[in-house]
Amino acid sequence: MSRRQEIVDAAETLFAERGYHHTSMQDLGEATGMLRGSLYAHIQSKDELLVEIVQRAAAQFLDGMAEIVHGPGTVPHRLREAFRHHVRVVTGNLAAAAVFLFEWRHLPPDVRKDIAGRRDRYEGLWRSLLSEGQADGTLSVEDPAVAAIFLLSAGNWLAQWYRPGGRLSADQVADQFFRLAMDGIGSQKEAAS
Amino acid sequence: MSRRQEIVDAAETLFAERGYHHTSMQDLGEATGMLRGSLYAHIQSKDELLVEIVQRAAAQFLDGMAEIVHGPGTVPHRLREAFRHHVRVVTGNLAAAAVFLFEWRHLPPDVRKDIAGRRDRYEGLWRSLLSEGQADGTLSVEDPAVAAIFLLSAGNWLAQWYRPGGRLSADQVADQFFRLAMDGIGSQKEAAS
Repeated sequence: MSRRQEIVDAAETLFAERGYHHTSMQDLGEATGMLRGSLYAHIQSKDELLVEIVQRAAAQFLDGMAEIVHGPGTVPHRLREAFRHHVRVVTGNLAAAAVFLFEWRHLPPDVRKDIAGRRDRYEGLWRSLLSEGQADGTLSVEDPAVAAIFLLSAGNWLAQWYRPGGRLSADQVADQFFRLAMDGIGSQKEAAS
Repeated sequence: MSRRQEIVDAAETLFAERGYHHTSMQDLGEATGMLRGSLYAHIQSKDELLVEIVQRAAAQFLDGMAEIVHGPGTVPHRLREAFRHHVRVVTGNLAAAAVFLFEWRHLPPDVRKDIAGRRDRYEGLWRSLLSEGQADGTLSVEDPAVAAIFLLSAGNWLAQWYRPGGRLSADQVADQFFRLAMDGIGSQKEAAS
């Protein structure tokens, strides 16, 4: 791993734990065992690190999702893949996801605008998949925008509570959440009445 | 409203917007139009404000929920009331909810432990309601703990995106989310096969 990558990884962890504003270049130096001056040989500023982390996360969310939505299979199949993808991006790098989800407010205005645009596109892909299922009858969706945010809530909140090595693996959580979202928790009895 | 309450309210808004660490006594002074010295006539420290905000929010979540869980009605009825209650606490004071959900890490250790205990009790009430529905057959729940966090994710994530005056009122969002959670988005066709 390059020294630069080492610094970016340390920044992800520290920004997620303490918040962007509460992480100093000195903290980054201590985490990587590098002197302040050496850090500046690899990066220009703390800002640059935040921008890189958030843009990389945005790209991960977006690229995988576009492939799934425009890929083969029924809508429920693609929706399941999309949900797994989202959960994998979040749990695969919890620190980066937390920075992306909670620290983006601290981005410089131009980057913030770019990221807001990519979030809109990402959520748009979810809405279009849900609309497709509404239209072809494979999903029972009243309002695709509300359903999208309902699904994404469960995926995003993972960044707050999920820790590897617990009772359930990330894929198990994803599949249980997806089944809950598809089948609902109302009993068959209730549904039939 | 008392001067003290005015300070607590201003702190809620500032902590939610900028984070606890990034809010200074000077910011609080500017928001309330009070001098630093006058602030200290009403409160002892910034810490005290964070503790008060988080404890008040914890009490709001917990009190209402205990009444609902131990109240009358079927499990689905109480679950709907519980979900509305959660959404009302979050959307009724978005700033306090955001501080409770995202800034509790900055609490002094003893208070943090107390709050963690109350969160556990709160989540325990959700799990017990879901277990009751699992046992009496009014809900179709595989794992009450997973179902509880699934429902709470949708309620908690509201603090990140919901703003009053949008397309949907808080009660409308709560009811749409609850219907999604109960019925699922899988089509009847799919469910019957």
